[in-house]
Amino acid sequence: MPNFTRRDFMASAVGTGAALLATPYARAASDRRPIYQEIERRHDETVARLQAWVRQPSIAAENIGMQEGAEMMQRLALDAGFQQAEIIPTQGHPTVFATLDAGAPKTVGLYFMYDVKQVDPAEWSSPPWEARLVDLPGKGTVLMGRGASNQKGPQAAFLAALHAIRAAGRKPPVNLVLLAEGEEEIGSPNLPQAAHSPKVRAALSKCLGVFMPGNEQGPDGNVTIGLGAKGDIECELIATGERWGRGPAKDIHSGQAARLDQPAWHLVQALNTLVTPTGEPAIDGFTEHVKPLSATEQAMLDLLAARLDEAAAKETASTKVWARDANWRQALEDLVSRPTVTIEGLVGGYAGPGGKTTLPHKMSAKLDIRLVPDMTPEDIVEKLKAHLARRGFGDLDLVINGGFNYTTTTPADSALIRAQRSVYREYGIEALLWPRSSGSWPGSVFTGEPLTLAVGHFGLGFGAHAHAPDEYQLIESKNEKLYGIDDMVRSYVDYLYALA
Amino acid sequence: MPNFTRRDFMASAVGTGAALLATPYARAASDRRPIYQEIERRHDETVARLQAWVRQPSIAAENIGMQEGAEMMQRLALDAGFQQAEIIPTQGHPTVFATLDAGAPKTVGLYFMYDVKQVDPAEWSSPPWEARLVDLPGKGTVLMGRGASNQKGPQAAFLAALHAIRAAGRKPPVNLVLLAEGEEEIGSPNLPQAAHSPKVRAALSKCLGVFMPGNEQGPDGNVTIGLGAKGDIECELIATGERWGRGPAKDIHSGQAARLDQPAWHLVQALNTLVTPTGEPAIDGFTEHVKPLSATEQAMLDLLAARLDEAAAKETASTKVWARDANWRQALEDLVSRPTVTIEGLVGGYAGPGGKTTLPHKMSAKLDIRLVPDMTPEDIVEKLKAHLARRGFGDLDLVINGGFNYTTTTPADSALIRAQRSVYREYGIEALLWPRSSGSWPGSVFTGEPLTLAVGHFGLGFGAHAHAPDEYQLIESKNEKLYGIDDMVRSYVDYLYALA
Repeated sequence: MPNFTRRDFMASAVGTGAALLATPYARAASDRRPIYQEIERRHDETVARLQAWVRQPSIAAENIGMQEGAEMMQRLALDAGFQQAEIIPTQGHPTVFATLDAGAPKTVGLYFMYDVKQVDPAEWSSPPWEARLVDLPGKGTVLMGRGASNQKGPQAAFLAALHAIRAAGRKPPVNLVLLAEGEEEIGSPNLPQAAHSPKVRAALSKCLGVFMPGNEQGPDGNVTIGLGAKGDIECELIATGERWGRGPAKDIHSGQAARLDQPAWHLVQALNTLVTPTGEPAIDGFTEHVKPLSATEQAMLDLLAARLDEAAAKETASTKVWARDANWRQALEDLVSRPTVTIEGLVGGYAGPGGKTTLPHKMSAKLDIRLVPDMTPEDIVEKLKAHLARRGFGDLDLVINGGFNYTTTTPADSALIRAQRSVYREYGIEALLWPRSSGSWPGSVFTGEPLTLAVGHFGLGFGAHAHAPDEYQLIESKNEKLYGIDDMVRSYVDYLYALA
Repeated sequence: MPNFTRRDFMASAVGTGAALLATPYARAASDRRPIYQEIERRHDETVARLQAWVRQPSIAAENIGMQEGAEMMQRLALDAGFQQAEIIPTQGHPTVFATLDAGAPKTVGLYFMYDVKQVDPAEWSSPPWEARLVDLPGKGTVLMGRGASNQKGPQAAFLAALHAIRAAGRKPPVNLVLLAEGEEEIGSPNLPQAAHSPKVRAALSKCLGVFMPGNEQGPDGNVTIGLGAKGDIECELIATGERWGRGPAKDIHSGQAARLDQPAWHLVQALNTLVTPTGEPAIDGFTEHVKPLSATEQAMLDLLAARLDEAAAKETASTKVWARDANWRQALEDLVSRPTVTIEGLVGGYAGPGGKTTLPHKMSAKLDIRLVPDMTPEDIVEKLKAHLARRGFGDLDLVINGGFNYTTTTPADSALIRAQRSVYREYGIEALLWPRSSGSWPGSVFTGEPLTLAVGHFGLGFGAHAHAPDEYQLIESKNEKLYGIDDMVRSYVDYLYALA
């Protein structure tokens, strides 16, 4: 999942459900009826296309099926009506770049990913590469498999919209520029290279914005629209006896601790300086460039606090209390506005069952640092280094593991977002605006220089368990609050018309 | 290896080497010549017996070949002349108890282990269960395999001594009581149960002491005699959101860190209170019962400092400096006299390549705490709990992982140790006395109540790479400072006569 957390988005909106489809919206869109009919007629084809896609694993982290995945992405684009689609090599896995010229006045950008997360098949109730249709109580028929929801399901639904438009004898109402990467799940290291290459950049610069198809419904049917994302740095702090010049340069019997320094304590002591006793970042100068929330953003938070369910959010987060014992409004503001330093993992020494009498020569902490405007990863890395050096921890290795993302912001009044809100309203859903996701993604490739485009996610569908076992895309909804795949396809048709 | 560190023991003794064998000792022991001849005659049989033993893996940690290992141990004892040998079940893996009544006035206890450490065969240059004879430059012909040195080689050499004595038409000069456990490598959890059962306790209580056969030569040929061991506690401190009542109770997206407390920071902050800025234990009251070294022990350290090679010790420890920048004499004293708190491993969250945007709900530290007289594990566990509770970390789980060992001390003037020194002298080696090993072992099963016996390790042989790949026992020495297997067998014959 492009690191957005959708589970907070559980407002009770102004009436939801497919039942509402029949009323104002359907009337307004009566000229699209032939397209809708094609969507229904082609339901099996849509599902079969998604199944075929899920059955092609492409795992960047394990270098499995990447060329095949890129070629499949290329074929999927050409089949859906893109006039050209090419595989662009990068320093890592290839990117697919495709364009569809509909002769329309407006052009819209699309950001896809064709890679998926790793799997442990033993953890799945249905084999992750078989894309079986499974009946799920309380939901309906789902397509289960790795990538079903993140992100092949929504992307396949978008492509199905293009198939339906063409089958109805129409042209898409906007021109399209598609950039599909194969490294989203490993932090998009080569996306900037691909997006900013002359040809792709020229095509993207004509777009009114870039969006990624996504399952934007929460489990209660509500939808939120994210207007930005935090930046982040995924890094690792590593203490070793060798670099420290103290303690052993190899793992040694723990009895030696009586006369040897321990790189592990050195790391613990360094880590301890990074946060306050209550766990807030304490890196020198960390908040120097933090911009306060605007009045508009504060107003969004007031609305979110009124409409979102705190108990449900606590249950989803599996917590009894918010940090600093914050109240609900404050917890939402924290989520949007606080930069953070998180320990993703501590790694080193003996990790097996029981104990082992060893004194490790190396110990490391994987850290995740989230940034808010106007912090930049470069500045924070420098501040972290200086902070450590100032306290006698200058010998620690700081390794950037990827996820070197900038903050992104898309205005609520951009064409991309206004069209989203209007389509959701047609379906009876008053989408909630979320000032900034607590997650991060490489959106700054589009929002930053030189493109400075609006970005967003869109799709009236439901999926779950991204990155986890039993990932699925809802196909036939038996839950009146959730939309199935055909409705999702329809939402893309409507969105393209709204953007036009 | 029963956690002694032998590598420090690199004094330049008063002349070493098999070449000296011909002189004073050989004359004194001329009545043992028929036994020595049997040792040489039975060389191939001795090696074959060790090979067969190594080829039977018994890995307690993986529950592999434990019953087979116990049965083999039983057969080995009976074959060597023990009149009775029985397998005693425990709550874990069985113990073997055997007795040899030679009608002698004195009785000596033997502590064996039939289990070995785990292996990763890929790391071995010779397959770990094949027990091949390999030519090693600078050493000679070695028998390579898991357990070859730790502890099957020395134990097989001891059994070979009994075979030789019998073959020469003699009876052993002392009666023997053997206790062989199968859980040494997992911290001997059931050794006390076995050793203190009525039958075994009654047999052991007649012993003048208990010794374990071992490769007591260092790589330069020198020998030290350990007079005690530190106690230890292997434990784990675990922070979880559930027990803390703060932060998540399951792993969650790291973006949530803006409004959730982190069990990982909670653990880091707790750990940080356990040591001073220079890494010394800072647990409240930790050193309350520490007994200063005696004048005799200080004198031993003076001698060790004069005779041991600091540069070699630093190289072995792979360090440039000792903790607290201690000089050599102080580093030796530290090793003997300092209680320690060591991080064996930090475990939790994401440990794979790169990063993963997760906020772990659980984080743990595996700790090794070494004790000196008169600290006890029970007292220190209570102090650790109180220390943590006092600082707001009372929610951390403290799990004892085993290695709950008491300190042990054996007087230098005990019969067991005096006999060792006299035998080594006969071989031209002035063994160095080491007040206390920095390692720990379940020796308090014998030294503590109710048995209060002297304990020690003995054996004039050389082996290496215990717990590591390419573990070996030296068989045919091509190094004039090191003894081969026949010499080692002979040293056991001599030791039994010296004890008698």
